[in-house]
Amino acid sequence: MHKLKVNYTLRGKEIQKDLEVGDGANLFEFLISNGIYVPSTCGGRHICGKCKVEVSTDQKTGKDEERFLTDSEKQMHIRLACFVKVDSDMEVRVPAEKQANILTEGMYALRDVNPRIKKRSLILSKPSLQDQRDDLKRITDEIGDVKVPLNVLKKIPVILENNDHRIKYVTRKGELISVEPFESNKVYGIAVDIGTTTIAAYLEDLRSGEKIDVYSSMNPQRIFGADVITRIDHTIRKAEGLDEIQKVMTEELNKIVDEFCKRNGIDVENVYEIAIAGNTTMIHLAFGIPAKNIANAPFIPAFTSAIEIKANEIGVKINPQGYILSLPSVASYIGADIVADILSSRMYEKDEISLLLDIGTNGEIVLGNKDKLVACSAAAGPAFEGTEITFGTGGVIGAIDHVDLTKHPAYTTIGGEAPSGICGSGIVDAISEMTKFGIIDTTGKMCSKDEINLDGDISQRIIQYKGEPAFLIDDKICITQGDVRQIQLAKGAIYAGIKVLMKKAGINFEDIKKVYIAGGFGNYIDPDAASQIGLIPKSLTDKVIQIGNAAGSGAIMALVSDNELKTAIEIAKRVEYIELSNTDEFQEEFMNGMYF
Amino acid sequence: MHKLKVNYTLRGKEIQKDLEVGDGANLFEFLISNGIYVPSTCGGRHICGKCKVEVSTDQKTGKDEERFLTDSEKQMHIRLACFVKVDSDMEVRVPAEKQANILTEGMYALRDVNPRIKKRSLILSKPSLQDQRDDLKRITDEIGDVKVPLNVLKKIPVILENNDHRIKYVTRKGELISVEPFESNKVYGIAVDIGTTTIAAYLEDLRSGEKIDVYSSMNPQRIFGADVITRIDHTIRKAEGLDEIQKVMTEELNKIVDEFCKRNGIDVENVYEIAIAGNTTMIHLAFGIPAKNIANAPFIPAFTSAIEIKANEIGVKINPQGYILSLPSVASYIGADIVADILSSRMYEKDEISLLLDIGTNGEIVLGNKDKLVACSAAAGPAFEGTEITFGTGGVIGAIDHVDLTKHPAYTTIGGEAPSGICGSGIVDAISEMTKFGIIDTTGKMCSKDEINLDGDISQRIIQYKGEPAFLIDDKICITQGDVRQIQLAKGAIYAGIKVLMKKAGINFEDIKKVYIAGGFGNYIDPDAASQIGLIPKSLTDKVIQIGNAAGSGAIMALVSDNELKTAIEIAKRVEYIELSNTDEFQEEFMNGMYF
Repeated sequence: MHKLKVNYTLRGKEIQKDLEVGDGANLFEFLISNGIYVPSTCGGRHICGKCKVEVSTDQKTGKDEERFLTDSEKQMHIRLACFVKVDSDMEVRVPAEKQANILTEGMYALRDVNPRIKKRSLILSKPSLQDQRDDLKRITDEIGDVKVPLNVLKKIPVILENNDHRIKYVTRKGELISVEPFESNKVYGIAVDIGTTTIAAYLEDLRSGEKIDVYSSMNPQRIFGADVITRIDHTIRKAEGLDEIQKVMTEELNKIVDEFCKRNGIDVENVYEIAIAGNTTMIHLAFGIPAKNIANAPFIPAFTSAIEIKANEIGVKINPQGYILSLPSVASYIGADIVADILSSRMYEKDEISLLLDIGTNGEIVLGNKDKLVACSAAAGPAFEGTEITFGTGGVIGAIDHVDLTKHPAYTTIGGEAPSGICGSGIVDAISEMTKFGIIDTTGKMCSKDEINLDGDISQRIIQYKGEPAFLIDDKICITQGDVRQIQLAKGAIYAGIKVLMKKAGINFEDIKKVYIAGGFGNYIDPDAASQIGLIPKSLTDKVIQIGNAAGSGAIMALVSDNELKTAIEIAKRVEYIELSNTDEFQEEFMNGMYF
Repeated sequence: MHKLKVNYTLRGKEIQKDLEVGDGANLFEFLISNGIYVPSTCGGRHICGKCKVEVSTDQKTGKDEERFLTDSEKQMHIRLACFVKVDSDMEVRVPAEKQANILTEGMYALRDVNPRIKKRSLILSKPSLQDQRDDLKRITDEIGDVKVPLNVLKKIPVILENNDHRIKYVTRKGELISVEPFESNKVYGIAVDIGTTTIAAYLEDLRSGEKIDVYSSMNPQRIFGADVITRIDHTIRKAEGLDEIQKVMTEELNKIVDEFCKRNGIDVENVYEIAIAGNTTMIHLAFGIPAKNIANAPFIPAFTSAIEIKANEIGVKINPQGYILSLPSVASYIGADIVADILSSRMYEKDEISLLLDIGTNGEIVLGNKDKLVACSAAAGPAFEGTEITFGTGGVIGAIDHVDLTKHPAYTTIGGEAPSGICGSGIVDAISEMTKFGIIDTTGKMCSKDEINLDGDISQRIIQYKGEPAFLIDDKICITQGDVRQIQLAKGAIYAGIKVLMKKAGINFEDIKKVYIAGGFGNYIDPDAASQIGLIPKSLTDKVIQIGNAAGSGAIMALVSDNELKTAIEIAKRVEYIELSNTDEFQEEFMNGMYF
């Protein structure tokens, strides 16, 4: 074992971590697996040259690495983390990351580039009276038996003739999906994380596994309702509702493809596969499959398996024979997004027990290791997304995202703009501060100005807002007693979910070695504040690793490597889903969990 | 071995055949394999009750057989041939067959009913909070893993809910192609033989293997040209020509489906598969695949393998997830029709060597046995179809179909109507009679009235027609010297083809034990006349077995049994195709073959 001293920046704060690492470990993978974000588009495949870190080592660098480094970088001990093998104690400095508005960055290490899509060259002998093999047989004699869609079969004689029998061909899982001129050599795929509120998409080069571009947008299905239940209601109330809501997603997917192709000068025919992650309802609605029974007990989805269809079956325009596939789900409320989270965290293969949280309207919770994985979904309500909070807002420009009452001003906003509201991470900070200063008691009751002994500035913040106690963050934006109650319900539900899973798995807090927090809200919250309000058990605070948009990372991994998709399918089968509404312990733990 | 004396009727003539048969043989199969047509719609599966023959045996009949027989039939020794096991010498009388205009009848014995389409019942447990399996998993836990098309997946939650979780499901080769209400129990398929000129289609019950209905029509693609070359030309000359010609076939297939459904009170959703045979060009055009290179040397088709697509891909309306498949071909001019011929003749599995002829515009010839199969296509021209003959016509009502100069009148017509022309079998008869009476010499030259010594009636028939010698069949219809030359070219090509194959296989005439003649023209010609003019070598006359629309039979077999389709695929791989334009012997044998 070697000692690693790592300096990095998280949310503008410089952090130093002391870690132990096995001899020979790959530095990139080790940092990622410890929640330290290192810029990369290739996932550690020696291709993008972006994972530059400063390392105290005299290891010799090879030519493959050196072509990414300038002379001055070499002198400054800059290395690509993916090339560094840890062979002694080291100090590592990781440069500060950029912060995005819609979270698209995730942390993942690619183990192989083994896409389902393969594009290869084929030079065929020409037919003669002595060799009258038909066009298809001439091809299959070289490449082996393949399934051939009608439209490819139609194209074969034309492509062979026009290209002097020298072609490129594209296969996918034993199917010949494209024949192309010999010059054609681009192979792209797109990974998409369809969140209820936001969408993140990634353009991947399927030859190198490199991330070429990133796209994010609000989910256009929001016009049919903010949450999954309202959207499902729309499909029930209106005969053509399901079609409507599906078509909007097709339009969005086409917009993503168009954007990527335009920005990067790519021919749409060279995009061959789209892999999507998302919660179970989002996956149903993307394919236009009835989601009705997801909304009502006993909460039965139409399917949870990974499915794949030709993209053109739902009108998505990539290569005419290209595919769109979804990662597998576990249950109505543990979707493909959570399976992708588990995949990218690698918790499913470790000896140590990890807890994974993905907090949105529902808080999905997974607990386990390589032997057992249990999961549940706690209905947290949309408070953490700012929806039922008086001045709540999403993570938009101008949202108060962090609160520290000891500073002046006591808050920061996204983009540094004048405050327009308060988003999830800001609310958690605010309530954390309020508990620290005794403005709310353990039951959540907000004190009046007279009840507490604080310096003038802070006590001036306690006001009445529309007839209830409230606490000013800014001169116009406050947290009301009602807001505190909403947060109590939300964090109580999540805490109770964690406790139920622990009981199910028969483990204590000390058994949990890592806490992965996935998703946008989870990425921006301050773990200390989250544990101060009891959203995360206090004893786990130091074990928190924020893995960013892990659903997007998992979708990328499944796109770029069929082995990773197979692993995702295995994960989905292994996860044991606990229906909280079906357990007695939940109500009890929920009551306990609401206290501060 | 037992002796079998069989009496049957062929083209109105009573025929008696003495055959030897192994102990325990099934009478139905034995008769079929010896070219004796026995009515049947189930192919000998004990289902249709149509293969009634009179048999001199005192064998006891079982209940399964007796329910098809009246008391008087039993007294008259009527048996179903498919129930008779030959265990002694027997006399058999087969009732006279009906004659159709477009040949749809073929002779085949089904060995099993093993369609790709399986429809089964499924009664599922209902979901609860204790059993939250998704709808699809609830199904696959019972029926095993299946591929599920999007539109079936969309239907599953609805069908389960509306039918109290009791359903019928339809699979095909590991794919779940339909989920239906529990009451649904019909399963149909359609076999189609797409000839260049005519189409024959068969509605099959895929549970029993029974033939339910037969349909025939002229090929509507004729509007684009009478023969394959003209139709291919149309696809080359006109950009949208291929689409046009394909659409016409889709319309025709939809008409066939509609007709069958209307006539038999069948729901179109309960037709799940269409199997088609046809020559290589017809198969290409049916699917809309470029056939351009079939027309010019070195004659390369786009594909020869058996292919299958969803019927809706070419707009054919059966069950929305139903399939259309084509039997495999061998080469541009040995198509799926000939593979189907070989399949239904069973020549591919016999020790004895057989010759198979399918004569149309091209004369396709196959020679071989279980060890070797060689095939060629001799360009006979359309003379046998009546097209380049002065008074030639197809096999229509009023066509002279048989000629016998010793009778009065000297001819018969189809339907007994006043003669409107002369069709292929009539032309063969006429030329056979002319050679017998010395009206044409061995070189094909027609004698003048003065050159021969015949009774007045026949010599009066020799006239001049538009400046060339001619022979009157009727007072208006004659065979001209030019017609004789056309027939010489045609039969010379076929004879030469046979000789080339024999040389290739290293065999003599006496090695050939059976001559199967397939197709419409082949079914109606008189074998004696055909051998008199040298179309069939004289020494083989007694070995002729006319197997009717064997292409249709083969398509039915491949539809009803996946094993038969697999056999067809093996046959197509085994057949060695000989390109006659590439052999030196052909020209020489062709010159010899033109003599009478």
